[in-house]
Amino acid sequence: MRDVAIIGIGMTDFGELWHDSLRDLFVKAALAAMDDAGIAHLDSMYVGCMTPGLFTGQEHIGSLLADYLGQAPVPATRVESACASGGLALRCGFFEVASGASDLVLCGGVEKMTDVSGGRATYALATAADQDYESFHGVTFPGLYAMIASAHMAKYGTKREDLARVAVKNHANGLLNPHAQYRMPVTVEQVLSSVKVADPLNILDCSPITDGAAAVILCPADKAKKLAKGRAVKILASAHATDTIALHQREDLTWLKSTAVAAEKAYKMAGLKPADVDFAEVHDCFTIAEICVTEALGVVKRGKGGEAVRSGYTARDGKFPVNPSGGLKSKGHPVGATGIAQVHEVVTQLRGEAGKRQLKKARRGLTQNMGGSGGSAVVHILEVMR
Amino acid sequence: MRDVAIIGIGMTDFGELWHDSLRDLFVKAALAAMDDAGIAHLDSMYVGCMTPGLFTGQEHIGSLLADYLGQAPVPATRVESACASGGLALRCGFFEVASGASDLVLCGGVEKMTDVSGGRATYALATAADQDYESFHGVTFPGLYAMIASAHMAKYGTKREDLARVAVKNHANGLLNPHAQYRMPVTVEQVLSSVKVADPLNILDCSPITDGAAAVILCPADKAKKLAKGRAVKILASAHATDTIALHQREDLTWLKSTAVAAEKAYKMAGLKPADVDFAEVHDCFTIAEICVTEALGVVKRGKGGEAVRSGYTARDGKFPVNPSGGLKSKGHPVGATGIAQVHEVVTQLRGEAGKRQLKKARRGLTQNMGGSGGSAVVHILEVMR
Repeated sequence: MRDVAIIGIGMTDFGELWHDSLRDLFVKAALAAMDDAGIAHLDSMYVGCMTPGLFTGQEHIGSLLADYLGQAPVPATRVESACASGGLALRCGFFEVASGASDLVLCGGVEKMTDVSGGRATYALATAADQDYESFHGVTFPGLYAMIASAHMAKYGTKREDLARVAVKNHANGLLNPHAQYRMPVTVEQVLSSVKVADPLNILDCSPITDGAAAVILCPADKAKKLAKGRAVKILASAHATDTIALHQREDLTWLKSTAVAAEKAYKMAGLKPADVDFAEVHDCFTIAEICVTEALGVVKRGKGGEAVRSGYTARDGKFPVNPSGGLKSKGHPVGATGIAQVHEVVTQLRGEAGKRQLKKARRGLTQNMGGSGGSAVVHILEVMR
Repeated sequence: MRDVAIIGIGMTDFGELWHDSLRDLFVKAALAAMDDAGIAHLDSMYVGCMTPGLFTGQEHIGSLLADYLGQAPVPATRVESACASGGLALRCGFFEVASGASDLVLCGGVEKMTDVSGGRATYALATAADQDYESFHGVTFPGLYAMIASAHMAKYGTKREDLARVAVKNHANGLLNPHAQYRMPVTVEQVLSSVKVADPLNILDCSPITDGAAAVILCPADKAKKLAKGRAVKILASAHATDTIALHQREDLTWLKSTAVAAEKAYKMAGLKPADVDFAEVHDCFTIAEICVTEALGVVKRGKGGEAVRSGYTARDGKFPVNPSGGLKSKGHPVGATGIAQVHEVVTQLRGEAGKRQLKKARRGLTQNMGGSGGSAVVHILEVMR
């Protein structure tokens, strides 16, 4: 396998972007990434998108977006693993470059979610849960993550305030991210007094409905230094794992097995331990998710995810910053784009281009992108190329 | 890149399978392929499926199907390119094995289409056309292919009867395929007098709505001979190309550019000419499609696709048999499964296991799987390993 690097990144602002269609959003992010890489032509492209059929009545978007990007007849493949679709698009492009079949591959993600009503958006998102055993009976994702939160609080003594602190931390980070949907600080009191969604989760524990797109450009690592003029980032590891998509089939509701398995594989592939990584962008679709994810990644011990946020361990100036971009919670969560937007942030930090939210130590970063309530997880480890 | 081979195949019967859910269908086909390969464990899997969200309310099917197949936590990736989703699943698995990342990869396809009404199925399929410029205005696929047929008839003098002969030939083949949905002969007169769908196409010019699944097992070619006990088939070429998904943007309605580009790449990759291939399984979603595809593949000259079926050139006992399985027309067209079912037939023929429909000369075969009205195309060339 050839080593693979990222030589360009681009993303749209995240938010309720009523003037931009799905194709507009993707093309903006893709062109920004191509401009950043200094290239005008692709060998191939991958698009992560969860459910354009239910959100916009449009499937077949690989070809559609290749055409609108001016790149047809290049191969263009859409991949889907619910909210982990973006991470998976990067992984598929990684294989194509690693195999030697292609040199310049764009991996993008996009979701246009605000063209439908809130109820239809909730239905569309619930297709990531088990239709026969979960969604059909009326449970949607806030309810599923509320069960995980309740189990975590009961098993480990995690406090309601710890959940709120994840939102407080990530909003504080997102405040400094010009692409973020919700650039506003929130306090523990505001989270605790915001409207109840599914006990114990309130609205400020939940990531929002968002339009947006992001893209990165891959090439073989041996060509990256020259092409990227010293700004290339190497993909040290790409790993993916699955789990039951239905919660009731799991041994332990609080343990995100797909993330744990993917992380273990990624550390092995990179020859690293969790302590060798400086920071991470993780899938905080709900506040409890970030707590469980830091445990599954081995960043903190099992059951200690709440304590980590309480003590400031995962704060921007903490020992292991988590979600310096603002995370899904503040930056927004256009589901298919999220996995690529995480990579956008890690590359920005590794390049030292993150402005006011720049981390002091950013040599190696990790991304963790998750589908549904953990039915799938994709982990990448990135390192700046000197 | 490592050479890649197919060491196992499996498929369900195709038809209106009301007792089988999406997950049942996939698991049956996948287990059949794993049994055929003599393996119990996978390194990774890919699933081609067009729109399970609109057909069954279920996305995130990569993880779901890995779980129901007893393979979680293996990586499982769903890919989509409308009706070319199956072919694309094979291509993604091909890269993963070729790259050296994995040895045993399952590539499957599935679609469960009969759980919704005919109108909702037509809407779901129309998401493969351009929502903004085609579907929104009421045109669906029979209408789009009717325009292609009218243009072909006007430009090349193709006769209405030539279209009908594609159906007659493919039903004659499907009659001998125990997996086929419509195992009945049809005559030119029956096609011409069947109910009109979109002038000039009648119902017997159209492939049906179908439930079904198919799967193949890939491994590195150097391990295939031993594993497959002399029944391995090598993938000589895998190619994919895109085109505008909207018909009005094309220079020539009768020319399937994505197929032509993918075929050219595939011949180059294999170091072959069209004449070096013995037979093909192609995407006859409508009778006119097979005519245009044989031209784009270089099997016949441009404009001569109608003549080829009229003269018997593409018949089962002709010089270049096309769709010995019965094609989408008679075998059925569960859209996400079709690309893999084509490979199932080619492998069956190359192994000499096709029973009453066995071709006399079957050393190398080609598959051509197409999305929408040609917005994407995937071509594979397979050869028996001696």
